[in-house]
Amino acid sequence: MTQIAFIGLGHMGYPMAKNLLNAGYHITGYDIVPAALEAFVKEGGVASKNIASTVQNADIVITMLPEGKHVKSAYEGSQGILSHVRPNTLIAECSTIDIETSSLIHREAEQKGIRLIDAPVSGGVAAAKAGSISFMVGGQKEDLDALRPYLEIMGKTIIYCGKAGLGQAAKICNNLVLGISMIGVCEAFNLAEKLGLDARIFYDVASQSSAQCWSITQYCPVPGLVPSSPANREYEAGFTSAMMLKDLKLAVNAAQETSSALPLGAEAMALYTLFCGNGGQSVDFSGIIRFLQGIKE
Amino acid sequence: MTQIAFIGLGHMGYPMAKNLLNAGYHITGYDIVPAALEAFVKEGGVASKNIASTVQNADIVITMLPEGKHVKSAYEGSQGILSHVRPNTLIAECSTIDIETSSLIHREAEQKGIRLIDAPVSGGVAAAKAGSISFMVGGQKEDLDALRPYLEIMGKTIIYCGKAGLGQAAKICNNLVLGISMIGVCEAFNLAEKLGLDARIFYDVASQSSAQCWSITQYCPVPGLVPSSPANREYEAGFTSAMMLKDLKLAVNAAQETSSALPLGAEAMALYTLFCGNGGQSVDFSGIIRFLQGIKE
Amino acid sequence: MTQIAFIGLGHMGYPMAKNLLNAGYHITGYDIVPAALEAFVKEGGVASKNIASTVQNADIVITMLPEGKHVKSAYEGSQGILSHVRPNTLIAECSTIDIETSSLIHREAEQKGIRLIDAPVSGGVAAAKAGSISFMVGGQKEDLDALRPYLEIMGKTIIYCGKAGLGQAAKICNNLVLGISMIGVCEAFNLAEKLGLDARIFYDVASQSSAQCWSITQYCPVPGLVPSSPANREYEAGFTSAMMLKDLKLAVNAAQETSSALPLGAEAMALYTLFCGNGGQSVDFSGIIRFLQGIKE
Amino acid sequence: MTQIAFIGLGHMGYPMAKNLLNAGYHITGYDIVPAALEAFVKEGGVASKNIASTVQNADIVITMLPEGKHVKSAYEGSQGILSHVRPNTLIAECSTIDIETSSLIHREAEQKGIRLIDAPVSGGVAAAKAGSISFMVGGQKEDLDALRPYLEIMGKTIIYCGKAGLGQAAKICNNLVLGISMIGVCEAFNLAEKLGLDARIFYDVASQSSAQCWSITQYCPVPGLVPSSPANREYEAGFTSAMMLKDLKLAVNAAQETSSALPLGAEAMALYTLFCGNGGQSVDFSGIIRFLQGIKE
Repeated sequence: MTQIAFIGLGHMGYPMAKNLLNAGYHITGYDIVPAALEAFVKEGGVASKNIASTVQNADIVITMLPEGKHVKSAYEGSQGILSHVRPNTLIAECSTIDIETSSLIHREAEQKGIRLIDAPVSGGVAAAKAGSISFMVGGQKEDLDALRPYLEIMGKTIIYCGKAGLGQAAKICNNLVLGISMIGVCEAFNLAEKLGLDARIFYDVASQSSAQCWSITQYCPVPGLVPSSPANREYEAGFTSAMMLKDLKLAVNAAQETSSALPLGAEAMALYTLFCGNGGQSVDFSGIIRFLQGIKE
Repeated sequence: MTQIAFIGLGHMGYPMAKNLLNAGYHITGYDIVPAALEAFVKEGGVASKNIASTVQNADIVITMLPEGKHVKSAYEGSQGILSHVRPNTLIAECSTIDIETSSLIHREAEQKGIRLIDAPVSGGVAAAKAGSISFMVGGQKEDLDALRPYLEIMGKTIIYCGKAGLGQAAKICNNLVLGISMIGVCEAFNLAEKLGLDARIFYDVASQSSAQCWSITQYCPVPGLVPSSPANREYEAGFTSAMMLKDLKLAVNAAQETSSALPLGAEAMALYTLFCGNGGQSVDFSGIIRFLQGIKE
Repeated sequence: MTQIAFIGLGHMGYPMAKNLLNAGYHITGYDIVPAALEAFVKEGGVASKNIASTVQNADIVITMLPEGKHVKSAYEGSQGILSHVRPNTLIAECSTIDIETSSLIHREAEQKGIRLIDAPVSGGVAAAKAGSISFMVGGQKEDLDALRPYLEIMGKTIIYCGKAGLGQAAKICNNLVLGISMIGVCEAFNLAEKLGLDARIFYDVASQSSAQCWSITQYCPVPGLVPSSPANREYEAGFTSAMMLKDLKLAVNAAQETSSALPLGAEAMALYTLFCGNGGQSVDFSGIIRFLQGIKE
Repeated sequence: MTQIAFIGLGHMGYPMAKNLLNAGYHITGYDIVPAALEAFVKEGGVASKNIASTVQNADIVITMLPEGKHVKSAYEGSQGILSHVRPNTLIAECSTIDIETSSLIHREAEQKGIRLIDAPVSGGVAAAKAGSISFMVGGQKEDLDALRPYLEIMGKTIIYCGKAGLGQAAKICNNLVLGISMIGVCEAFNLAEKLGLDARIFYDVASQSSAQCWSITQYCPVPGLVPSSPANREYEAGFTSAMMLKDLKLAVNAAQETSSALPLGAEAMALYTLFCGNGGQSVDFSGIIRFLQGIKE
């Protein structure tokens, strides 16, 4: 039977692993947070005590880690994934990280004959639970094809983006638009309120016209308009502002490397930095609407 | 038979008036530009030589003018609309202008027993030709109902937004989101290109996920992806950058009046000012993608 | 003896009037706030009960009001200054207001043969008390010369800027630079702190090199470095953030009217709007450093 | 006699080395650009053919390189500086680079018993020629003291900023303020012009009041006001926009690493990216005033 190793069982990794367990797979898992491992064991997973032992017998390895530095540390070195997997193991690296680190890991894997794709996801925790996340994939097409049955258990949409690192590129560009449009939508709803325009009416106008966007119609930052919005649950994340800030930093860094102009992207990064610095870190990223509104008396 | 007076026969007013002519109405028209009047006469309209004579026998008056100052001058004073229409005339003021001027004209009309709605439109020249523009309406609901049959000839969607001036508020907030999201989308496509990500693949990713917005799926600023986009016709407007700049100024002014924070809105205004100042005035507003890219060698 | 009328005895007007009283002048004053008038009377001024009676016997009129709308209302109409002063009265209009209103009042004064200069001031409350404010003057040079002896009692520097309204233009452009450089300086001190660089060392570096500016060397936003800084007194204004926001709005409006690009000016306006919206209204404008830092735990 | 090795003989390094040669020192130099080496030889320097041979007999090593990656490559590896200098050699690393790389080189030097300071400079090419640059120094105070006689030949001001890397921190924070204030000053002069305010009058106002800053009084972006300004020589650099962009990227990166909010810094970076992308790369950084003005007809 296919042996799966899953490294990184946090907010996103845990529900993804759970969906694989529910589909009947045998999974060995690892996370540096003991509570995360325990939760995984309760769902039927097998806990491992380090990365080496987690991956050594695996046919498939999936990693879902917070940042490039964690990915680097998990893959490299004598205790890292690339030193302990068997040749021909298939790896789906699902973290959202900088393209530089992603490309580096790709090269190192390739040198050892290990087949790796970058497959960052979008959709947030709710979609991870529902098995409806999207994967944006970079690497060899045939490696994606070999991994596709497993990705399809965890997600609904799988888009092949091209060579190594381009899954990350797609994710970064996608969230750049998302961060900007969410702030723009918040500015517009706040202005509408100050002008005496009912939020529902503005919602009706905007969702039928040129302002239409996912941030309005699927994730509206004003409560009471879109049932699934975190706005209806006091901006409980969802996708935290700290995560959005991380992704906007990736976009700004990628722009710096490539001499691309991101005037609104850079400003969106600055605004999420301000929001996170003023208490918004773990608030859903749509909660920036309250920061932009200011204190209410 | 219903007598319609139409004032302002420019890029938007002309196709709107033409649709009414085609529906069999008798229209007297006026525009300070002789060529505009001539074009209107060729379609069967009756040219008038000033505002007073245009409106004096009208049952319905429609105005479509560039800015608040033109509206003020067309309505006020001894030669203005409000001094020459008959009591109970119905007026649809369709210009996109500042809320202050719109409210002022509403008050002056009301004092004279004239029934007026503010009914700015969205959709651009193509939609005006196709009779598919949207109207965002402020004023008395019964006045809108009386004017509805005429608006339905010129447009497809009519949304009642509330009291006097709130049609303008809805339009301004809508275009605030549009201006911001268009620039955000341009930044993302430019970054994608620099990262080696194919534009069509990014289009596929974005249109299926949280970056989805009208600026991508209906009006994509990269050529070859959405047939109706001005990008496919060298950014021939459509909706000019000068018009977008005008609307963003209205948003920033409304925000100043109401102490609303528009950090991205203000920056979008600055960027369209730069683009217009560097030759982009009459280019479609999606053409800002080229300015953000910089010169290509 | 020269009769002076002083209208607007607030934070700036009161110390200015007091300096004239101390120089031995007879002044009739007016303010809509009774407490302001009482304070003025205690210093030897004569309270008047409305604008008409304040100015009717004056040789010199000085006005110092918050915004353009107050200036308009004080000067125009049957109870306004321009209807009650004697011909040849000299007026120094010292408020910081929009150029449009300033030019309008100039024209109306000229039509009645009244000699008026716009003479907005800089330096804040401390300078007003010390008699060391600067006047930026627009209007006829000979009218400035006739008023100069009085201005010299209240201020130290008097700069003739050109025709009517250009005193306002100079003030607006000056404070545009000030608002931007203050935020820039705050960003740099915050970054220095996060990088472990001592604030005094950064002060020493910056004040000797290309970062040198008034916001560092005369008004440093970090406590303990420049004795006169509001930073040393818990950011007690000085010059409030609400006042800085007002001036940045004037700059952005002037830029809109003239199609000038103010990308940093517009962003500075947005940041002061956010700061004022989050409790900073009456805090000195250098206090924005705390908002940019975020909450400290 | 003291043997000096100088690596990096570009726009800044060349005049710095020349000042040491003129003071009578014996210098071995290296640059990957042959023409740079030749110019240095003409002034009396000794060309070396690689880094190893340049530094192997040196008592003092000075490096002045464009970016962190060049510094990393010059210092590390079997052919790098740190493998070929003698123990106790004193090194002044004068490049402006990221703090991370600077700290890394410091650590590697320390491990080998090599004494290194980071000593980035400010003042531009003119100051380098005149021997009047400023050094901002990080590292051990006694290492600075040992190097001070040499730095004093090349510059006028030497400020000790603290531990390893803090010279870079000071430089980065300084140029953050500079980039922002230069753009702010350009916006203000452009607005003044549009409002009809004479540039010289605005210069007089601003240089005596709260807008005063180095970008106005020492480096004014409008021609004809400050003799030494690049504005008087068609914006011939001076300090190129590409260099300013590089420094603003360092500031934004440092802010990302430390969760500092740089809203204006990020926007300044975006504007210099746009200017460089539209032909401004080698133009003096004050030349952004023309880009902000737009095309003149």
